[in-house]
Amino acid sequence: MSDAKMQSVLSSLSQVARQLEALPSDRPAPDTSCVKLNTNENPFPLPTIIMQSAIAALERQYLYPEDDNISLREAAANAYGVSKDQVIAGNGSSELLGLIYRAFLAPGDSVAMMSPGFSFNRKLAMLQGAQFLEIGCGEAHSLPVEQLLFGPAKDAKFILLANPNNPTGTFVPVADIERLLAQSDRLIVLDEAYVDFAPDNGLRLIDRYSNLLVLRTFSKSYATAGVRVGFGFGHPEIIGRLRNIQNVFNMNVIGHAVGISILAHRDAYADNHKHIKRERQRVTLALLQLGFSVAPSHANFVLARAPAGQDGSWWQAALERQKILVAFFPDKGLENYIRVSIGTKEQMDAFLAAARDISGSLKMPRSRRWAASGSASALRGR
Amino acid sequence: MSDAKMQSVLSSLSQVARQLEALPSDRPAPDTSCVKLNTNENPFPLPTIIMQSAIAALERQYLYPEDDNISLREAAANAYGVSKDQVIAGNGSSELLGLIYRAFLAPGDSVAMMSPGFSFNRKLAMLQGAQFLEIGCGEAHSLPVEQLLFGPAKDAKFILLANPNNPTGTFVPVADIERLLAQSDRLIVLDEAYVDFAPDNGLRLIDRYSNLLVLRTFSKSYATAGVRVGFGFGHPEIIGRLRNIQNVFNMNVIGHAVGISILAHRDAYADNHKHIKRERQRVTLALLQLGFSVAPSHANFVLARAPAGQDGSWWQAALERQKILVAFFPDKGLENYIRVSIGTKEQMDAFLAAARDISGSLKMPRSRRWAASGSASALRGR
Repeated sequence: MSDAKMQSVLSSLSQVARQLEALPSDRPAPDTSCVKLNTNENPFPLPTIIMQSAIAALERQYLYPEDDNISLREAAANAYGVSKDQVIAGNGSSELLGLIYRAFLAPGDSVAMMSPGFSFNRKLAMLQGAQFLEIGCGEAHSLPVEQLLFGPAKDAKFILLANPNNPTGTFVPVADIERLLAQSDRLIVLDEAYVDFAPDNGLRLIDRYSNLLVLRTFSKSYATAGVRVGFGFGHPEIIGRLRNIQNVFNMNVIGHAVGISILAHRDAYADNHKHIKRERQRVTLALLQLGFSVAPSHANFVLARAPAGQDGSWWQAALERQKILVAFFPDKGLENYIRVSIGTKEQMDAFLAAARDISGSLKMPRSRRWAASGSASALRGR
Repeated sequence: MSDAKMQSVLSSLSQVARQLEALPSDRPAPDTSCVKLNTNENPFPLPTIIMQSAIAALERQYLYPEDDNISLREAAANAYGVSKDQVIAGNGSSELLGLIYRAFLAPGDSVAMMSPGFSFNRKLAMLQGAQFLEIGCGEAHSLPVEQLLFGPAKDAKFILLANPNNPTGTFVPVADIERLLAQSDRLIVLDEAYVDFAPDNGLRLIDRYSNLLVLRTFSKSYATAGVRVGFGFGHPEIIGRLRNIQNVFNMNVIGHAVGISILAHRDAYADNHKHIKRERQRVTLALLQLGFSVAPSHANFVLARAPAGQDGSWWQAALERQKILVAFFPDKGLENYIRVSIGTKEQMDAFLAAARDISGSLKMPRSRRWAASGSASALRGR
């Protein structure tokens, strides 16, 4: 902020933007040699038929993408048995979350999220100058319907639920969500990012409850985090307004082609989903044997509580020294946890070998711990 | 809006969103058999080396895109001789325009644009609840610096200029823009979407004037409208805040790969740009012969005023009947114009043949006009 011109320009920023810092540019590039189990990607390549449709789309990429994502929305409507008026397509569901915040929140408003939840929502609320209320679900991991209806969240413009929840992996019965929808007059945003790994889903409720908006993403269950394909399903009066706020050409032609092709070939992912569930079970059992506590997960990750006296950030750092990336959350109540995405069998073998190695070193006399941990890493050679 | 729940949800919308209509879904799909000269696309395929990088990116598309577009921003910084702190990368420059509106405008604020200009800006201002001021540049197509400094735009939070301008194709000397930058303390957003077809550009001014933000897109000069690659260049204090507002994973991995590859191979587009300029000249001369008025264009389109007594919407419709799509603008002062994008030689031959045919039919007795026009269309067979 060197000069008077700059000061003048900054004073023209909106009240919210003025409070933001300028993001620094010196973040280090990520180490791509690591086994990446920290952001819940699904690590399998595109099925050949979907890859072909993406390459075909590249041939005509000099044309603007289709306006309003019409063909993709129609394909999603057909695949999920709803009308195209009930579908909005997004550059990932993160774009759609952003639109919902912009449509419903002005400075001073509030929004409520079940906690612990997806921390990106906190940033979105901050960008609207809105208050972000986190409603704890307690150890029972059930839906605190009364608290959401009558507690501190009663004036929230909308309520965010994720089912399965991130980062807990827990799944609440759809009947609980229906009870909330029936009793509330507010918008309930149900983020079903991980639902294809769960036993049920809430999409069927959109015809019954006009206050429901369901979000889906293809990042997890269809292994396309890098392409950015997400959907929102809800009442045409809400969906149509969100589409009206959405920026023009929000998705590119590859997103359209990949999305449409996946919707036509969802069966090509049956083995993928079976694999994720099988590995999730194997990793859960192996972590239990190492002394972790692991609640049953309904997503493509497990949240594991470190053995007594050890904390999540320590485990995250110890694993990173062995080139395994997992997630750790500084949030209150999550200090003792790590979240591990379910990857390929080879990736999970590498994770479990490192976890066993670290666990073993903890049982040695303190003086020998780091030497042992270091040599295991060198042997693995990645 | 059938039920009480829906009414309640709609009442939670922000004041701006409440005024929007729900977008209808019944828009007809575009006729892809037409010669498309209405949205200024550059109709050439990706050079092979760039296509290869896009396909390589598809192989790893299950991973999330790089955070904060670091590699793409570094590549742009190197290519354009600025620092990466001065670069923001967008899902097309349209995303970046949207960010600027969100950062600077609150309900009741105002923004000014040189008129006629890119109408998308009007919608963006409306979404912020802001007043949109259009400052006419008159017939001289020069920059009305005094009007922008002291006229109705003097309280605007920022001023939008496009150079070359759309839809006029006119180019004002960069020295005029520098004079405005020097005399104003407000942010000047200089949209250079078409600048690679023009004799000069304003990017060099960003180191001298902290109130300048330059926008670029690869849609026009690098023929990637369908991939969505755009950039903003400006002072790190502004760029860093816009990056902080930007949604996570705003571009997909194909956008990153294509953008980085183009920046490394801009010379592969030399013939493309030569072609556009040559065809622009040929089409200009041909339209002059048909009685149109055509101001010299510095973009990849021409804005042509129909012969006396004919209007733009009539020409647009007559051309569409012959399967040629051109743009028409209902805005005051543009009623007699059509805007024709510069495409391949074959596309421009088809356009000129249709234009000659329509022009010829206008000179016939009224009873024979449509028969002649119809048969020409049938002969062309597309």
